[in-house]
Amino acid sequence: MNGALVTDWYQLNMMYAHFIRGTHSTPVVFDVFFRRLPCGSGFAVFAGLEQVLEFLSDVRFTDEDIRYLAENGRYSAAFLDYLRSLRFRGDVWAMPEGTVVFPDEPLIRVQAPLAEAQWVETAVLSIVNHQTLIATKTARIVHAAGNDPVLEFGLRRAHGTEAGVYAARAAYIGGAEATSNVEAGRRFGIPVAGTHAHAFVQSFGDERAAFEAFVEAFPDQAILLVDTYDVLRSGLPNAIRVFRSLIERLGRRPKRYGVRIDSGDLAYLSKAARAMLDEAGFYDAVVVASGDLDETIIRDLKVQGARIDMWGVGTELVTGGHCGALGAVYKLSAVHDGVRWVPKLKVSENPLKINNPGIKKVVRFYDADDGRALADVVMLAEEPSPSGPYEIFHPIYTMKRKTLVDYTTREMLEPVMTRGVRRISAPSAAEIRRAHAAELERFAPEIRRLVNPHEYPVDLSLPLWELKHRLVREAQRRA
Amino acid sequence: MNGALVTDWYQLNMMYAHFIRGTHSTPVVFDVFFRRLPCGSGFAVFAGLEQVLEFLSDVRFTDEDIRYLAENGRYSAAFLDYLRSLRFRGDVWAMPEGTVVFPDEPLIRVQAPLAEAQWVETAVLSIVNHQTLIATKTARIVHAAGNDPVLEFGLRRAHGTEAGVYAARAAYIGGAEATSNVEAGRRFGIPVAGTHAHAFVQSFGDERAAFEAFVEAFPDQAILLVDTYDVLRSGLPNAIRVFRSLIERLGRRPKRYGVRIDSGDLAYLSKAARAMLDEAGFYDAVVVASGDLDETIIRDLKVQGARIDMWGVGTELVTGGHCGALGAVYKLSAVHDGVRWVPKLKVSENPLKINNPGIKKVVRFYDADDGRALADVVMLAEEPSPSGPYEIFHPIYTMKRKTLVDYTTREMLEPVMTRGVRRISAPSAAEIRRAHAAELERFAPEIRRLVNPHEYPVDLSLPLWELKHRLVREAQRRA
Repeated sequence: MNGALVTDWYQLNMMYAHFIRGTHSTPVVFDVFFRRLPCGSGFAVFAGLEQVLEFLSDVRFTDEDIRYLAENGRYSAAFLDYLRSLRFRGDVWAMPEGTVVFPDEPLIRVQAPLAEAQWVETAVLSIVNHQTLIATKTARIVHAAGNDPVLEFGLRRAHGTEAGVYAARAAYIGGAEATSNVEAGRRFGIPVAGTHAHAFVQSFGDERAAFEAFVEAFPDQAILLVDTYDVLRSGLPNAIRVFRSLIERLGRRPKRYGVRIDSGDLAYLSKAARAMLDEAGFYDAVVVASGDLDETIIRDLKVQGARIDMWGVGTELVTGGHCGALGAVYKLSAVHDGVRWVPKLKVSENPLKINNPGIKKVVRFYDADDGRALADVVMLAEEPSPSGPYEIFHPIYTMKRKTLVDYTTREMLEPVMTRGVRRISAPSAAEIRRAHAAELERFAPEIRRLVNPHEYPVDLSLPLWELKHRLVREAQRRA
Repeated sequence: MNGALVTDWYQLNMMYAHFIRGTHSTPVVFDVFFRRLPCGSGFAVFAGLEQVLEFLSDVRFTDEDIRYLAENGRYSAAFLDYLRSLRFRGDVWAMPEGTVVFPDEPLIRVQAPLAEAQWVETAVLSIVNHQTLIATKTARIVHAAGNDPVLEFGLRRAHGTEAGVYAARAAYIGGAEATSNVEAGRRFGIPVAGTHAHAFVQSFGDERAAFEAFVEAFPDQAILLVDTYDVLRSGLPNAIRVFRSLIERLGRRPKRYGVRIDSGDLAYLSKAARAMLDEAGFYDAVVVASGDLDETIIRDLKVQGARIDMWGVGTELVTGGHCGALGAVYKLSAVHDGVRWVPKLKVSENPLKINNPGIKKVVRFYDADDGRALADVVMLAEEPSPSGPYEIFHPIYTMKRKTLVDYTTREMLEPVMTRGVRRISAPSAAEIRRAHAAELERFAPEIRRLVNPHEYPVDLSLPLWELKHRLVREAQRRA
């Protein structure tokens, strides 16, 4: 799905209008950023960069694409010829995948000839919006589950199969332990998990016979789904009988065994199931819960003392549930006029929609003593690296100020592509997941709160703030 | 993304457990249905069948898939050999795409050897859940927009690029007029639409120069985005000047021209824009609105007298917004025991989750006089076609009864695949869209209400109702 036509029609139209004027090769800079955190979350988990780089490396017009445009567009033959040989040859800076990110900071910066930069906008956003949303939602669910493993079970409810495969990747980066999605397992090396369905039990007619058949095939992954008929009167007693004979046959405990409950009152049933398993001596058997779970329900079940060891989460995790979209945008911030870079601004009726102009970098400040993240500051790329006492201020409530003294800094945007060629090799999903977990540890735990989290400061440097205000005034004068 | 591993791990595990027992080729029947309409809607629009049939036709294990399973699964060499030659060879019945559908009626019926039926479950659900959700959401938005065209602009907010392309298809089926998604245009013959972005205006520095460049390229598609700086003080005056000189140059009105407003108060701005356009004599210029629209906002804007001619809808349409998932399931309803079909039931703690057992058909009753849809009845496939007075009753509130007298009927499930081979050629997206629109006309308009719509009756035939109740009692006795 890496086609050249995976874009909005208006991108091609703009490319054509520029082509006619001869301005299609003007160097420009676009920023990818979002304005609002999804789900009222205190942070987001940046994901999708690897697929963005694949897209940018591979995208080109096929003969069939050109034929379609010749028949359906109102383009000149010269423009179609130009498209035929078009490649993305821009420079790209980006935060590493898995980075803990916040509103209004550039996640990706694209510097490219104008037409190329417009061409790829839509696909870049689609990839980043999807994976960042799912990684962020997963981080919320993982937080609610405390130290319990979260399993991603959502493929069947994803927005099609590709969405399911990339959601599994994003979920793993965001902290899920494993996925049910075999293709995601193969493609990204993510651990896969899964037991059996109700249909398996029904196909045998007799629940105990089904359980026996299952443990015969998987003696050391003997997680049995116990709610096909009646959890406490049928499922658990049958499971316990089958565990007993399995242990007798093996001469030892299985490596992994237990029950999964997929319906009913999970607080009540899990406690009763735990008691029955303990009573039978199966202290090491696990109770897995699934069935329309999300972070709120998991949190509530834990408050009610549910005895659940692992959480299988599908629909809500793989779609984002009530927060079904991240609104990352791709905004022009600078145009090269042949002599120098001219910072660009969109003045909106809504002040929050006015973008930060110019070529920018993002600097994260950490406490020099304990390594804790203190604040992010969006700066002009040309500004020197901060050293010595550095005053930060809220970009809207400017009286809110603070001077940072003992800090270290990190520049968050790294060069990842030069003239269309990748500069970094692809880290594995496991490496990204580890980097994310390590970085999240450096933030105050209050940003992880599900409701009304702490607002981590993302400020503008004084030069950037002044540039923005000057350009807004100029635009207002012009209008 | 049609790989054999686009499935849940537990499907492969169940296939293996059956393989060991030699029960993997047992003929079984599964139904695809959903239990709840998304977004509180009064109906859903079935979509995705074409991609389901493509998946079923093409799916097979590659050498790389087998290698992955050999390394990561706990499967025998015999099982891996079996997978290597596995194809989907089942029979499939389905409602035509675009059909107006309701909860608890089978949309697809799969009859296949057990292992094959399990193997494809996850992908089938993922495809149907996605496209049916988006087609349904679009139908709501189209209803809110009245007779105005709705344009699908959502690719950048979709759950990845493939989700965006299939969402565009589903949106078109559900009633959208066009899409911004060029790949969807090429692949499915959907009309494409699009003008230019804020970046286009910014890249010129001067708004009027940008507008002039755009109409030079597209004199007959001159829709100008007027909110880059200030809609009423800059965008409209510049657009009007550019329209004047364009008309002078052409010696006639453009085929299509007007303005797009993407931010600010759309009610106020559209009325003011209309007045300015009319004042300039441009009665035929259109006002297009976009920017975080959904069915509720569109409805409200219309109540407030907004003068909007076309609605560009992105995020909410392409993701479903707050209703981000359809919960269609795939449930075992019959198993062949070598002699006869045995109906199957899952008894859940939640009575609404007890499925309808047996091999079933869906009969839609229409008024013989005016052709209006009266009720759907789910029946056992073996039941004769209804003729003469036919009593329907609510499957839960059974005292709610009604006798249908002058009616015609239609069997909704059609054979679409036999032993893995397609029986129908693919209708175009435009044909599906037309069929949907024609069928929706046959339903009471009250089912289209956005909030608290009329509940269209979907009942069970008496034989099916009795079978279900008998099987529930038997299961309870067993447990």
